[in-house]
Formats: sequence, C-alpha cells, structure tokens
Amino acid sequence: MKSYRKELWFDIKKRRELINITPDVLVCLKESGIREGLCLVNAMHISASVFINDDESGLHHDIEVWLEKLAPEKPYEQYAHNGYEDNADAHLKRTIMGREVVVAITDGRLDFGPWEQIFYGEFDGKRSKRVLVKIIGE
Amino acid sequence: MKSYRKELWFDIKKRRELINITPDVLVCLKESGIREGLCLVNAMHISASVFINDDESGLHHDIEVWLEKLAPEKPYEQYAHNGYEDNADAHLKRTIMGREVVVAITDGRLDFGPWEQIFYGEFDGKRSKRVLVKIIGE
Amino acid sequence: MKSYRKELWFDIKKRRELINITPDVLVCLKESGIREGLCLVNAMHISASVFINDDESGLHHDIEVWLEKLAPEKPYEQYAHNGYEDNADAHLKRTIMGREVVVAITDGRLDFGPWEQIFYGEFDGKRSKRVLVKIIGE
Repeated sequence: MKSYRKELWFDIKKRRELINITPDVLVCLKESGIREGLCLVNAMHISASVFINDDESGLHHDIEVWLEKLAPEKPYEQYAHNGYEDNADAHLKRTIMGREVVVAITDGRLDFGPWEQIFYGEFDGKRSKRVLVKIIGE
Repeated sequence: MKSYRKELWFDIKKRRELINITPDVLVCLKESGIREGLCLVNAMHISASVFINDDESGLHHDIEVWLEKLAPEKPYEQYAHNGYEDNADAHLKRTIMGREVVVAITDGRLDFGPWEQIFYGEFDGKRSKRVLVKIIGE
Repeated sequence: MKSYRKELWFDIKKRRELINITPDVLVCLKESGIREGLCLVNAMHISASVFINDDESGLHHDIEVWLEKLAPEKPYEQYAHNGYEDNADAHLKRTIMGREVVVAITDGRLDFGPWEQIFYGEFDGKRSKRVLVKIIGE
C-alpha cells in the first residue's frame, strides 16, 4: 500500500468564498503515483469546508444566500460562541457544507461523475488556512 | 490490496425519491471478494445524494417535508442557478443529505448497526443517473 | 494492509449531548499499530452523529439551539415517523451533523488541524448506543 500526503494553503481575502480546488487535487494525485485507492480531502479548520458540487456562479450565489438564511453571521450576539470571537456562524455553515470528501481513485484518475468538482468553502477567512489531501492505494 | 468498482444506474420517474440500495451494495461486496476494508458509495451527480438512515416510510415523508422547508423547490426564480435550469433546490437538498457514505467492511460484511440502511436520494430525477461503489481492502 | 476494528459504547443519560471522543479514538489508533492510512469513525445508530468541530461549550450550546430551530423535537405530532416513536427530530438532527468522519493517519497520529476534535452527538439518548472505529493502513 502506498500513501501520499499534502497540505494545500489558502489565504482568502474575504470572509466567505468558494474555490474550485480540483486542479490542486489532480496535481496531488499525479504526484502520488497511486492508480487505485481512496483520496480524502478535508478542511483542517473547523470554520471551513471541503465539498463537491457544481462550478456554476449562480449556484455559488444561491449557496451564500441560503447559508446566511440557515446560519446568519449577524447579529453576533445571538451566539454563545461569540464571546471572544465572531465566527460561530462559520462553524454552523461548515457543518451544513461538510468537512471532507472521499473520492475514489480509479485507473489513476479522480473517479467523478460529469459535473463533480471539489471546492474549498471558506467561511471565516482573511487568514492562512489549510486543506489536507491524503491518498492511499496502489 | 484489492480494489473493486461498480456503477449503479437509476432512472427515477419522479423528481424526488429515496431508494434503499443496500441490497445492490451487498451484491457489489460479494463480487469484490473483499473481507476487510472500506466501501465508498457516492452519488456521481450533484443533485443526488447517498446517505444512511432508517428504512421507514414515515421518516421518508418527514425528510421530504423537511427538505422542502429548508430548501424549497419553488418559486424557481428565487435561485440564481435557475437561469437555464430549475434544479437549484436539488443541489441544496443534496448538500444537506450528503454526497457519500463510507462503510467499514469487516469479515466480508457491511459493518452496520441495527437499523443502518444505505439510500440513494434523488432530488432531480426523470433521467438516468449513477451511484459509484468503490471498495478497497483485502 | 492491516485493519483494526473497535466499538465504543455510550449510555448518555440525557436525550441530547455532545461528547469529545478524541481520546477514545487515539487509544484505538495506538492499539491498531497503524502508522499510515485512514480511520473511519461512524455512529452505528441513525439518531446519533459523529462529527468534527471545536471543543468549546459556547459553540455546543449554539449547536443545540440551532438544531432545535432547524429540526425541532416538539410537537411530536408534526412528524409522520412519530407513530410509535418520538425521535424523528433525532434522525433529522443527525442528518445535519453527519454520520461519520474519515481522518487521515500520518506517522502514527490523527492528522488534524489545530482545533479539530471528534465528537459523538447523541440526539436520542437514555440507552446504550455504539460508535464504530475502523482503521486500515500499514
């Protein structure tokens, strides 16, 4: 069994943003030399997400509006977590979007359906944060 | 390390439906010959879900009502994604329900608790769509 | 390839509670002797969750309030599932929080970011329930 590990670093200038990281994961897969196995991609921070969806700007706008409805940023005082911080909403938004994805590796490629793309979802940005890529297989 | 891959195809006649696919995954597991490892089951489409819950029709009704409350299908114009499409709600519903499950394989069986069953959740049906089963182990 | 399996048992005295199980998973990892691989931790019950977030009591209070808003326990009659049971809300709460996490194992440790901790989320307690830890690797 082979294993491969890499950290991807992001420094998002806004509080919230969705970034397509599929090209970064493909570079990892190539570096790994693994042709059959599983690829875990997870946010290493608890106010960020890794998820799979469509790379369509209208949908990304809809996700932003929807998350703000389900877990609004303000007023900050509505959250007990916001004593020293203001990011409780980011923890909840990431909970809805998910921490991680596991992707099948088949014949040296990400085994995806037609529109699947991997995104990093930043919900409390303006600082450096990391995504972990771990691939195991042969 | 062994690896196994299969696509399961579904052509749901309604827009939304939940289908128990545990028997299909069990067939895959048997075909794989793998006795210890991990089994990934994921929707290959971004408006569908694979999740684990109870096979109880009342609960499935509750899930339908609940998802319509959290991410309503209509009015279609509420979503920026719905320029050429009408399925933005399906992308959001699938986000709540999840893309994938990872199941432990122990002694040649799905290592499940008493009521765990795997479901395909279709949220934008009336066409052929796929689920990927990937099993790695020994 | 090595594989390791253990069940963790919990008997929560309240209906809902979040418990940090990271120390239990670390014991499993040490017992497994696995230094590179993947660790699956999943609830074996469909009214409970395993998830990763911050071990901060304010946030846990926020999660409780938020889940009660998104999927309220009462009135029980609002859910079709609650014919013989009263736990439909627990199935929905667990859906939001997730069934499982997959954690990378690197150099014999849980490959975590700075604040990641693994929690068992009980949403229908007052009875014995289980979490499965499955580790594969080398």
